[in-house]
Amino acid sequence: MIRFDDSDLTCNDFLGGRVRLLQPVSGYRAGVDPVLLAASVSATSGQSVLELGCGAGAAILCLAARVTGLQVTGVEVQPAYAELARRNAAENQVPLEVIDADLGVLPSDLRQRQFDHVIANPPYYRSGAHSPASDQGRSVALGEQTPLADWIEVAAKRLAPRGYLHMIQKADRLPDMLSACAGRLGAIQVLPLCPRQNRSAELVILRARKGGRAAFQLHAPLFLHRGEQHVRDGESYTSEVSAVLRDGEALLRFQ
Amino acid sequence: MIRFDDSDLTCNDFLGGRVRLLQPVSGYRAGVDPVLLAASVSATSGQSVLELGCGAGAAILCLAARVTGLQVTGVEVQPAYAELARRNAAENQVPLEVIDADLGVLPSDLRQRQFDHVIANPPYYRSGAHSPASDQGRSVALGEQTPLADWIEVAAKRLAPRGYLHMIQKADRLPDMLSACAGRLGAIQVLPLCPRQNRSAELVILRARKGGRAAFQLHAPLFLHRGEQHVRDGESYTSEVSAVLRDGEALLRFQ
Repeated sequence: MIRFDDSDLTCNDFLGGRVRLLQPVSGYRAGVDPVLLAASVSATSGQSVLELGCGAGAAILCLAARVTGLQVTGVEVQPAYAELARRNAAENQVPLEVIDADLGVLPSDLRQRQFDHVIANPPYYRSGAHSPASDQGRSVALGEQTPLADWIEVAAKRLAPRGYLHMIQKADRLPDMLSACAGRLGAIQVLPLCPRQNRSAELVILRARKGGRAAFQLHAPLFLHRGEQHVRDGESYTSEVSAVLRDGEALLRFQ
Repeated sequence: MIRFDDSDLTCNDFLGGRVRLLQPVSGYRAGVDPVLLAASVSATSGQSVLELGCGAGAAILCLAARVTGLQVTGVEVQPAYAELARRNAAENQVPLEVIDADLGVLPSDLRQRQFDHVIANPPYYRSGAHSPASDQGRSVALGEQTPLADWIEVAAKRLAPRGYLHMIQKADRLPDMLSACAGRLGAIQVLPLCPRQNRSAELVILRARKGGRAAFQLHAPLFLHRGEQHVRDGESYTSEVSAVLRDGEALLRFQ
């Protein structure tokens, strides 16, 4: 089992320093994806939010920093990451409940509860489809051990009626996500995330609603970087993305 | 049964006048959609192309005007439109074969044939989901009498191995299209068509390949109009769209 000593960890700023997270130096490290996911959720104070696979807590702690008064819960299968999420929650003064569990075998008390929102940033690579990461924790975080359809099935079960799922995932998994939603969640909206203009989407944020019946909607993409080509290293985020990453603003794309 | 007298018809220019089409004054009239569909097909001289539901022939005649030396075939359920397609083909000097048939009961000789490309611009509205058009021909052309999944099933059957389907359809039908492709066609690519920047996709062009195994790809959208808002009536197409509609250029988005 992985354990992190403090010498294995770095502290990183998110949302312009409004959130500070301890992350493993060589394990799974949050990038912009969980921050964009958190920014896309239109939660309001008093609502409950469950993150499936919360890792060190980047997404749910960013959401809790933007929207105060949420009841936030995370599930994490890797105990060292769950422990890190607890430490990060305490450091950021967020009353995050972290549950050590595999998605496939959630504890029975959690299976009795429903949430206004479920969020998830599931692993991006199918098991066996990529070179195993040298780091075990990173490998579990990146590799799909639980099928993507199971994430959506579990999310749908844990959502309250009219509740929303927000999930960020590689764009090439969109057909799998849509087919997993069929019969479980509706009113699906997809926000493509394109690295820059005229580049295909690398990621999508999918929003789906329990009991939703509105037509499927494909939004104009969020372009992450300015310009049509990568010119130089360093920051070149579009103003919309920079407002999310640096100023902690909401991503107002879903109606 | 509908019959068109010449007084029921107007003659309209497509591709800057390279294609001229007789169309019914009050029936189904081609807009930019079949032109964009035709522009997206990377067919080469000598290949065979089948259009399902060719109407008066807008899409396949635009394709034949751009790529010379194609063997082109259209299927149309409404005899008056099939006859119009024959007239339009003759006027544009394209040896288009037009087959009077319902998709569900294609003639047996056609069921023996396979094509390098199948294209389709199926009706956009579910039967019963919209007010019936006052014009019967327009109603059949706009309303979904044959389920969308059947269009894809028929297309898949008529495609040669490694052949491509290109289909333009309302964006809200994307989940239905993807599920109909599952197990039949692969290497799916989707090009969203957004009216303008920051507006959701209204249409998508779906490309799928028989026997294709490449990952699903979601392209950056084609924006039809310039600017973020509708400012005035009249033409405001983006240069990429104008090059297709006015200059008859290819839409080079699918690799």
